Amino acid sequence: MSNFTLHNIPFGIFSIKNGKKRLATIINDQVVDLYALAEFGYFDDLKIKKTVFKNDYLNDFISLGKEKTNAVRRRLQEILADDKNIHHSSFTIHHSKVNLHLPVKIGDYTDFYSSEQHATNVGMMFRPNGDALLPNWKHIPVGYHGRASSIFVSGQNFHRPKGQINATDATPPTFSATKRLDIELEMATIIGQPNLIGDSIDVNKAEEYVFGFTLFNDWSARDIQRWEYVPLGPFLAKNFFSSMSPWVVTLEALEPFRVAAEVQDPEVLPYLKEEKRQHFDVQLEVILQLPNSEGVKICTSNFKNMYWTVAQQIAHHTVNGCNLNIGDVMASGTISGKTPDSFGSLLELTWGGKNPITLPDGSTRTFLEDGDTIMIKGFAEKNGLRVDFGEVRTMVLPAK
Amino acid sequence: MSNFTLHNIPFGIFSIKNGKKRLATIINDQVVDLYALAEFGYFDDLKIKKTVFKNDYLNDFISLGKEKTNAVRRRLQEILADDKNIHHSSFTIHHSKVNLHLPVKIGDYTDFYSSEQHATNVGMMFRPNGDALLPNWKHIPVGYHGRASSIFVSGQNFHRPKGQINATDATPPTFSATKRLDIELEMATIIGQPNLIGDSIDVNKAEEYVFGFTLFNDWSARDIQRWEYVPLGPFLAKNFFSSMSPWVVTLEALEPFRVAAEVQDPEVLPYLKEEKRQHFDVQLEVILQLPNSEGVKICTSNFKNMYWTVAQQIAHHTVNGCNLNIGDVMASGTISGKTPDSFGSLLELTWGGKNPITLPDGSTRTFLEDGDTIMIKGFAEKNGLRVDFGEVRTMVLPAK
Repeated sequence: MSNFTLHNIPFGIFSIKNGKKRLATIINDQVVDLYALAEFGYFDDLKIKKTVFKNDYLNDFISLGKEKTNAVRRRLQEILADDKNIHHSSFTIHHSKVNLHLPVKIGDYTDFYSSEQHATNVGMMFRPNGDALLPNWKHIPVGYHGRASSIFVSGQNFHRPKGQINATDATPPTFSATKRLDIELEMATIIGQPNLIGDSIDVNKAEEYVFGFTLFNDWSARDIQRWEYVPLGPFLAKNFFSSMSPWVVTLEALEPFRVAAEVQDPEVLPYLKEEKRQHFDVQLEVILQLPNSEGVKICTSNFKNMYWTVAQQIAHHTVNGCNLNIGDVMASGTISGKTPDSFGSLLELTWGGKNPITLPDGSTRTFLEDGDTIMIKGFAEKNGLRVDFGEVRTMVLPAK
Repeated sequence: MSNFTLHNIPFGIFSIKNGKKRLATIINDQVVDLYALAEFGYFDDLKIKKTVFKNDYLNDFISLGKEKTNAVRRRLQEILADDKNIHHSSFTIHHSKVNLHLPVKIGDYTDFYSSEQHATNVGMMFRPNGDALLPNWKHIPVGYHGRASSIFVSGQNFHRPKGQINATDATPPTFSATKRLDIELEMATIIGQPNLIGDSIDVNKAEEYVFGFTLFNDWSARDIQRWEYVPLGPFLAKNFFSSMSPWVVTLEALEPFRVAAEVQDPEVLPYLKEEKRQHFDVQLEVILQLPNSEGVKICTSNFKNMYWTVAQQIAHHTVNGCNLNIGDVMASGTISGKTPDSFGSLLELTWGGKNPITLPDGSTRTFLEDGDTIMIKGFAEKNGLRVDFGEVRTMVLPAK
């Protein structure tokens, strides 16, 4: 069970039955209706239009700017410090009684490739006779554009995708449902401030452009990917579905969990050089649940297992003048640690399908089968302070 | 000068000075205010809310469906068949007095790579010792996701992008403004109907999902592209700016200009097999204008120079269940014909910068210099019937 603390106060979108969508936070197991609080006048002195809290997405709220959104978070901490407010039937409701929705309207979605161990593992498998890392990898936070329309919230499931598959290049392709359906354990950065077209964002100011983070599962069809991705990158292997957790944890909630990032060698170009290189110490786990079984943890990783920081990703993305908008998503890329139990995809965990995972009941998996459920969970914890990200849970349905 | 005929009746978005944006069509050189016509009651019997015509984008109009949008086009043809209506000051205005805007709110933007000659040319340059076409090219309408936020309308200019450049892979990269700024002559398909996540679109019904087309310039920085694109595809080499013409020409206006598409060899997989393979015969040209000079035509091509049809692109894009939305853009990829004067990029026209173009005044170009303007124009013409696409015009500003 997730444990949403008074320190955390993430933001999300909820509805009840056929009701309109509203903004919310969550504390313990209670979802807090921010529009109801606004109607009660709790935010009156912050001079925020009440309708901002009755909205399909967080974007309008985020566009108020950090001064106001942080003030709302602090106000919520004041209100919810009083235990009787947590169970105040006029503005809180048990999480089991609400529907949670995609928190932001996503204009553009970018997926990075920022974990060195992941890039190395993939390189070793796909180019066994070459260098594991490509020449550009330690100079560029490599990324590519993904599909925004097919990002859905936790709890929404998808049908196994079909497509062209070809294992050899020498034969004609065949058409079938993917046989190598995989996950990618990622975190998503939610952009909180736009830049104008033509303007670059300074790497040392880049975090000002971050509203917060969610968990992210970048579902992947490895056999489709192998055949299609040259020379323009992954396309149908990824754009059939991506999954996001419903609660956006703010950058401010993660402040106590900063950790130093490793020194980069070779030295990066000046536009990527940070005065202070920091990651966030967020523990991550992937749980595989077979039909009618208990979930089994198959991976333990950490958001800090990144070579490139979020600030570097943003600085790189905009160095050419590319414009970001509020609600844009920048996913981290698969976050793999150094030990085999910390690899963030089945491709790596089973080493290309060669080493199946054996589960406690004796069943095995290389890639996913129909009916399998994947949960990604995440939390930061230190000195009694906890920030929970909740989970992103998705089930694989049979091909249509 | 463009010649917008009574047959054409494209749709766009205009404003006057500080006025709100409204829907428009254009005939001859007169922009026609559709909201004003709606206020006069011209569309009353079509049962369309007037506010649809007072809108920042065409999306709400497109979402009425083809039955209604085609009825509006026919109604406009009736109204504008009367010459005095074309100069009716209550609802028409000379095009020089209005601002034209991006016609659609673009959710997702996909760029294909569907001209065989273009893919062959690029392959010959980048892989001189291998096969020009990669093994997947004749099986897959190769495409990738691009950046929606940085697509702007004709007349908006951009600053030369900066980024990492490395010609060799063996040395460290350097940072500078691009020295190989290029264009790509493309057409953009505007999606007119959504499909649900998980649902594939039948290739023989795919054109029902097309609202219309515009001209498209997929600006590219070739030196940035070379270093960054392995293994996940082009990113900063493309997402600094793309340009679109303001008038969306409907699929219906192009009906008289259908031409048979070549038989594909090898045979494609069943989901890409069309009962009737057709392209649209749209003549395209690229004009380069140096500062204080006349424009010079540097390329003449045609929308029919495609190996993959628009219907195949849509069927492929959705075969895995990927969901399209109204206003999504699918660009064709560079449209190069078989003769060197029909190549749709400077990369091809100058063969990687080796053969500079000499202009009438003696100046030369390989890639573009600051102050250069590129215009793409397009039109279909047959038996006295003409459909003009207008132009997309963009000037290169110096790096910031």
